[in-house]
Formats: sequence, C-alpha cells, structure tokens
Amino acid sequence: MDLTDCRLYDDIIDPPLSDDELAAINAANVDFAQGLGLQLTYCSATRLEASLLVEARHLQPTGVVNGGVYCAIGETTASIAAVAATAKPAVGMSNYTDLLAGVREGETIRAVAEPVHTGKRTHLWRVEMRAGDRLAAVTNLKLMILDR
Amino acid sequence: MDLTDCRLYDDIIDPPLSDDELAAINAANVDFAQGLGLQLTYCSATRLEASLLVEARHLQPTGVVNGGVYCAIGETTASIAAVAATAKPAVGMSNYTDLLAGVREGETIRAVAEPVHTGKRTHLWRVEMRAGDRLAAVTNLKLMILDR
Amino acid sequence: MDLTDCRLYDDIIDPPLSDDELAAINAANVDFAQGLGLQLTYCSATRLEASLLVEARHLQPTGVVNGGVYCAIGETTASIAAVAATAKPAVGMSNYTDLLAGVREGETIRAVAEPVHTGKRTHLWRVEMRAGDRLAAVTNLKLMILDR
Amino acid sequence: MDLTDCRLYDDIIDPPLSDDELAAINAANVDFAQGLGLQLTYCSATRLEASLLVEARHLQPTGVVNGGVYCAIGETTASIAAVAATAKPAVGMSNYTDLLAGVREGETIRAVAEPVHTGKRTHLWRVEMRAGDRLAAVTNLKLMILDR
Repeated sequence: MDLTDCRLYDDIIDPPLSDDELAAINAANVDFAQGLGLQLTYCSATRLEASLLVEARHLQPTGVVNGGVYCAIGETTASIAAVAATAKPAVGMSNYTDLLAGVREGETIRAVAEPVHTGKRTHLWRVEMRAGDRLAAVTNLKLMILDR
Repeated sequence: MDLTDCRLYDDIIDPPLSDDELAAINAANVDFAQGLGLQLTYCSATRLEASLLVEARHLQPTGVVNGGVYCAIGETTASIAAVAATAKPAVGMSNYTDLLAGVREGETIRAVAEPVHTGKRTHLWRVEMRAGDRLAAVTNLKLMILDR
Repeated sequence: MDLTDCRLYDDIIDPPLSDDELAAINAANVDFAQGLGLQLTYCSATRLEASLLVEARHLQPTGVVNGGVYCAIGETTASIAAVAATAKPAVGMSNYTDLLAGVREGETIRAVAEPVHTGKRTHLWRVEMRAGDRLAAVTNLKLMILDR
Repeated sequence: MDLTDCRLYDDIIDPPLSDDELAAINAANVDFAQGLGLQLTYCSATRLEASLLVEARHLQPTGVVNGGVYCAIGETTASIAAVAATAKPAVGMSNYTDLLAGVREGETIRAVAEPVHTGKRTHLWRVEMRAGDRLAAVTNLKLMILDR
C-alpha cells in the first residue's frame, strides 16, 4: 500500500479520516517522518494532528531534540495537510521553523497543523509543536500546489 | 565517547580537524543527523562540510527527499560549525530552509556550512546543499551562543 | 517628546495604554513606520494593534503595496509590543514575512501583534495584517531582549 | 514614465542597464523603496546593486535604522532583479531578512542582489546589505514568476 491507495488523493478530506484510515497510513510508513516515529492522529481538510514519542535517536549531543526533527515534523504534517485540503500533490518551497524550547527523551511532541493561507497555487500552513504545556517549535511551511 | 572528548569544546578549531578526529566524531554517532547517515568530511572554525547518501528512508511518498532532511542537515552542520568557531555551546533559534530541487535515492547530498555573521551572542550560518551540480536546498540557521 | 517619555519603558503595559497615551505616541512620530503613516490603535503587554491607510507612496510599480511595507509594519508593531511586554529594549534579529495578497491604494491595513514565545532573552511575536477580510501578510519577528 | 517604458519588461537585461537607463528608472520613482531614497546603481540579469543614504526618517526610536527598511530594500532589489532576469512580472511570496548590525543616520547602505535559484516558476534571490565593512542585513526573497 502507498498513500495513493487512501483517500488523500481522491478528494478533499471531509469528513476527517477515520481511525482505520489513519492506522492504514501510519502502518504504510511511506514517509521519512513516519520512519522517525511520527504518527498521524487526525486528518481533515482544515486540520492535521500528529505525535512523536522522543527517543534517544532524535537528540542532539546536549540531550535535547535536534531542531531538524521539528522541521521534519512541520514539513511532513503541513505537506499531508495541503494534500488533504486540495486532493492535489503539494511541494514544500520553504520551511521556516522557530525553535523555542528543549524537549527530552521520553516526552511526546504533539503537532497541530492549520492553514494560514490556501490559495490556488500556493498554501501556507502553520504547525505548532508542544510537549506538555510548552510550545517547543513552530513551522511555517510554504507549498506549491501542483496540477495533477 | 561523546563530543566533549574531541577538540570541539576545547578551543576554536584551527587547524581543521584531522581525518582521525572526523572519523572519531562520525563513529560516535551522538546526533540525530548522524543517525540519518550524515558524515562530517571537513571541520574548521570557518567552514564545515558533510555528506549524506540518500536512502529509501529519507524520502517522502513522491520519491524525493523529505524537506525535513535538508533542514536537519542544515541544523546540524551549522550547529557543529558554530561550536567549532567559538568552543562554546550553541543553540539553534530559527531554521529557515529553502527547498529548491528534488533529490532521489542513491544520490549524495553534499553540504557546506559557512558563517554569515559571527557576533558575540548570536551567529548566522548558511548551509548550501547540493546533489551533483544541483542546488537542492539552503539553510540559514540563527544560533544563540551560550556561556559555558 | 520621545518614546522614553511614555509608559513604554517604565513598566509592563498593564492596563493597556489609554487613548491619550496612544495619541501622544502617534503624534511623536519617532519611528520609520510612523512616518509611513502607521498609527497605533491598541497597546497592552499581550497585544498591539495598528493601522495604515494605503497611499500611492506605499505601492510598487504594479499598483499593489510593496512587500517591504508589511515587513516594516510587522517589525515595528512586534518591536513596540516586546517593549510593552517587558519594559526593556528589544532588538529585531530576524523578520520572516509571508506575502499573501495584494492591497491597493485607499484600502486600510490593520495589524494585530500577539506573542508566540516570550522567553527571558528572546521573544517571538506574530503579526497578522489584514485588508478587510483578506489576510495580506504575516510577520514572525524574533527579538533579543536587552538588559537596561 | 513608468517601468514599462524601460527595457526591464522587454527582454532579459543583458548587457546591463546603462547609466542613462538607471537614471531614468531612479527619476521615475515608481516604487515605495525609491520614495525611501533607494537608488539603483547597477542592473543586469544576474546582479543588481542599489544604495540608500540613511536619513532621520529611516530610524527607529533607538537611533538605528528600522529593520523594515532593510526588508524593503531586499524586497525591492530582488523583485527588480527577478524581472531583469526574466522579462516577466514577479511577485514576492516570502521575505526572510536577518538583521545583523545597526546603521546610523548619515551612513550609506549598499545592497547587492544575486540569484540563488532561478527556476521556471519560482526564484530565490539573496540580497546582502552593508554599511562600510559591516554586514547590516541579508534578505532572502522567494518570488513567483508570472506569465505575461
């Protein structure tokens, strides 16, 4: 199975993906960020949620999560969200990620992606990533929406 | 061994790290990006180089490298470079990565980090990532330099 | 009069500035963006609002507002807001502005700045700029908070 | 006269604009940044230069140039440069400006715009702004290239 087997490229995702559909995507493990342990937990045309349990492999030498992990979570959640909102392929053009607080092994990062701007040719999605109450990082991802 | 055993936190890195020192850091595998397969190939106080052979695990569903991989390479190379330039801990504050071209499995991404601004409290490093002749991505990483 | 005569550097701004205090700052015209026509309309420790009536001098050759105007509005509102939140000087470190829709002469741009992260040494403020119902631009401004 | 009277939209700018052509554009004053005092000093398909003499109106309350001025210089020089490189209209999509050093009244900011990536649909230009030997700011401007 790959992502083309799910509803993501069939139509705008409304209603949200069911638990079974989410489980199928998570099991498919077709993306870099899924290999990192990212699990999708909610997906509609206007909101996507995901979580990642921090393991030793996600850390930098000082013991907190490498900033690139947040960038990758932001990149991936916003990209899937843009596809869910358009049923078209989307390509990230620029990834701006603010790194705001350190997160350690054993904590869970919860990401919520919401649209800032959904134009015909470009989208801007904003992804907040929290560990407990702390805002750890925010990604602003600009995407090009492609014709199929 | 961890990074504190190498010269990185002892003094500004001049002359560049030797091949043995680079090999020791690469073997230590203490960072997220090293787990991704990133290998340091050159490290001085004013330039850092690294490379990554693209494997299936780095890709997004369309078959090109997930943008988060470039962000992680940029984050890691610029962070190590800032430490090499200051002999002090450095924390990424914001990661701005432009995604410019697709790279596929089997290609090698070569990253070169150079300083744009090295102030007392903040640094800005710019990391160009190429696959062959193509500029695939550029990271601008802003860092806070910490007192020890 | 300059800004040091108002409450901005005396204490964290709570309650919000009064209409008289806002009028005094707007009349003082001590900042680049005020020279552009930006008027502060609300200022507390957690929210700043301002507006600008678009004139011919704000445009680029194609007849819409030059993107630099939004960056300047974002820079200025977020900077004043950071001072209002801390009663300390604040210096912009990086300004990331997404340009989302064109605005024409005679329209009014309304800006709202709210904090994303208010740390001891750095702040991140996000400024949404709208013309009527359209989201025209968003600035994310990262600032360094200085000791007095 | 407006910019459509000059060679900018006729063809890719090679050879560079002559002194007379630059003077005509500067005199036309059709853009926000020209109203700020920005003067174009060199324009080819692969490089654009401009300068601005800092006056009191460019400053923020602390006496240094408002960060929005750099963003506006970066926005404008990169936009004209993209037109010069393509002979097509170009729209800024995101403006990322790092603010690196303070510049005071009476100093001159010299800007140099060079291309990072010139794709068919999108461009990325990088604009370095210096005052004397100091690097004051760097803009990375992402643009959409439009069909005429």
